Amino acid sequence: MSRFWSPFVASLVPYVPGEQPKLDNLVKLNTNENPYGPSPRAIEAIRAVPDDSLRLYPAPDAEGLKGAIADYYGVQSNQVFVGNGSDEVLAHVFHGLFQHGKPLLFPDISYSFYPVYCGLYGIQAQTIPLTDDFRINVDDYLQPNGGIIFPNPNAPTGIALGLSAIEQLLKANADSVVVVDEAYVDFGGQTAISLIDQYPNLLVTQSLSKSRSLAGLRVGLAVGHADLIEALERIKNSFNSYPLDRLALAGAEAAFVDTAYFEDTRQKVIQSREHLAETLQDMGFEVLPSAANFVFVRHPDHDAAALAKGLRDQRVIVRHFAKPRIDQFLRITVGTEEQNSKLIAVLRDLL
Amino acid sequence: MSRFWSPFVASLVPYVPGEQPKLDNLVKLNTNENPYGPSPRAIEAIRAVPDDSLRLYPAPDAEGLKGAIADYYGVQSNQVFVGNGSDEVLAHVFHGLFQHGKPLLFPDISYSFYPVYCGLYGIQAQTIPLTDDFRINVDDYLQPNGGIIFPNPNAPTGIALGLSAIEQLLKANADSVVVVDEAYVDFGGQTAISLIDQYPNLLVTQSLSKSRSLAGLRVGLAVGHADLIEALERIKNSFNSYPLDRLALAGAEAAFVDTAYFEDTRQKVIQSREHLAETLQDMGFEVLPSAANFVFVRHPDHDAAALAKGLRDQRVIVRHFAKPRIDQFLRITVGTEEQNSKLIAVLRDLL
Repeated sequence: MSRFWSPFVASLVPYVPGEQPKLDNLVKLNTNENPYGPSPRAIEAIRAVPDDSLRLYPAPDAEGLKGAIADYYGVQSNQVFVGNGSDEVLAHVFHGLFQHGKPLLFPDISYSFYPVYCGLYGIQAQTIPLTDDFRINVDDYLQPNGGIIFPNPNAPTGIALGLSAIEQLLKANADSVVVVDEAYVDFGGQTAISLIDQYPNLLVTQSLSKSRSLAGLRVGLAVGHADLIEALERIKNSFNSYPLDRLALAGAEAAFVDTAYFEDTRQKVIQSREHLAETLQDMGFEVLPSAANFVFVRHPDHDAAALAKGLRDQRVIVRHFAKPRIDQFLRITVGTEEQNSKLIAVLRDLL
Repeated sequence: MSRFWSPFVASLVPYVPGEQPKLDNLVKLNTNENPYGPSPRAIEAIRAVPDDSLRLYPAPDAEGLKGAIADYYGVQSNQVFVGNGSDEVLAHVFHGLFQHGKPLLFPDISYSFYPVYCGLYGIQAQTIPLTDDFRINVDDYLQPNGGIIFPNPNAPTGIALGLSAIEQLLKANADSVVVVDEAYVDFGGQTAISLIDQYPNLLVTQSLSKSRSLAGLRVGLAVGHADLIEALERIKNSFNSYPLDRLALAGAEAAFVDTAYFEDTRQKVIQSREHLAETLQDMGFEVLPSAANFVFVRHPDHDAAALAKGLRDQRVIVRHFAKPRIDQFLRITVGTEEQNSKLIAVLRDLL
């Protein structure tokens, strides 16, 4: 605390990302990174950049990348926004679309950055409990609000919400922006981007950190009605003219073009997830039905924090949230088959 | 305008960066980029990154880069903040250090992003006119304020303020944060970083886009008392856990280590600036004394907008600001000797 701080800074409770330990031979299943590398075409595109041209600013409006995303989803470029990771995109969303003097609604169990953004921008929040089986019940969101946001599939549960439920939400909240945070959608969810022309209050956000395996490059995006995108552009252009560097622009664009590699790796992750979920169930774990690249599991006879520590002692890192309702769960990223086998072997020893 | 926007969005007046035209054979002297490429060691470090490791998040706290900057300036790592370009750093500064219900003071002629940040964060601003010869008069800043910020050297004038004047400001405003925006300091100004241990209200910001020739990589920094840095870290960690991607971290760190290349190129720019300034003076231009990598010039007999247009017709782009007091000036980035010669040749035809 310092007298020089703007008053709100003292009460900020920053987000704590999963750790990035520098240990050798680590089985790192704690931050939902993709076990496979990025598209070789993305790597090639990034490698082609570093030369004297780095002295020049990047394209401030990221036309090339926006065009590739628009082509991929069959939308217009002015329906696409890009940012320095979906966290930056979400920050601008909270700032630009959720300040309406009414509470923002989101699930009590969801991405733990949402309440942090509310603190950053002074947004009143109201959490809506998931059902006892950790699902979103659309009827619970039928109340006055200044916006709605939820991950789909939800994190850290992995449970997906269907498009018909999302349409119900959109219709029942026609005067609020409904943001569907699709960071994990490519692993089994259904994107709501197909609905943006019907619902001017729908905004979909996505990340290149998971299904496109570019967490190290920091690129996220939003797709929605041009009016919503314009709000984000106005904020972006009042914050940082060039949020994406030349390497990020080149790599992200190539990743969207290489659809074959994308399909191949996401199917591999999905298959490994199903295999991992079955194995864990056979070992007595309750496994929530996941449409993401992680599983959210608890064991009736073993404390989750103790399991996380036991795994860590054997250099397998998973994520444990010491939070109400979920403190007996572990969120385990789907790794390669080899990593998953190591996880299972260590867990067998611990049970 | 849309009913979905947070109310402040409609009144935002975004910053307009200098254009990045895609024309061949352009002499691009409009956005103060370095005419020389980045350090070969920076390029090499960036080239070493793109492989499967891009699937992993970058280091959220950027320890390596902070350490290199701390070593370079002889400060502690907890006195260093890094961000996605100095524009992002400045945005966090405005948000976290300038909201005190009293007006922020900055020169009437300075970086035109400052009033934009004030609009973004609802900060009351009061501009202080530069003197008739476009200098900062420290006595004009002796009034109640919620902070002070100015570029040093100033932009777009290029005129530097000495450290003794900065110390006067710091002493006279001991309860306000004084931010010295040193985007251009390496071309002839004197950094105020040497003063941070004496003045807990001093924050210095810098950019790697100019003297380190990495505009395309988007890296900026701030150096100051650990309490000021902590405010920025809290905001950063409430906004985006990983603002710098793996390539930016690697390239920026290498650029700070390669001091020989840095010294060589900045001296070349300084020499070219002096040569360019003399030539323009000989042609009848008034040239403000520049300590930056640009010159700010006006001709008594020729309209600046007309000159800018005439240059552009010959594929030489400079920056003209249609603003009070400076609408008869051109801001011309110092290019290579060859680029400067082309500029001069076209200007001679226009006079």
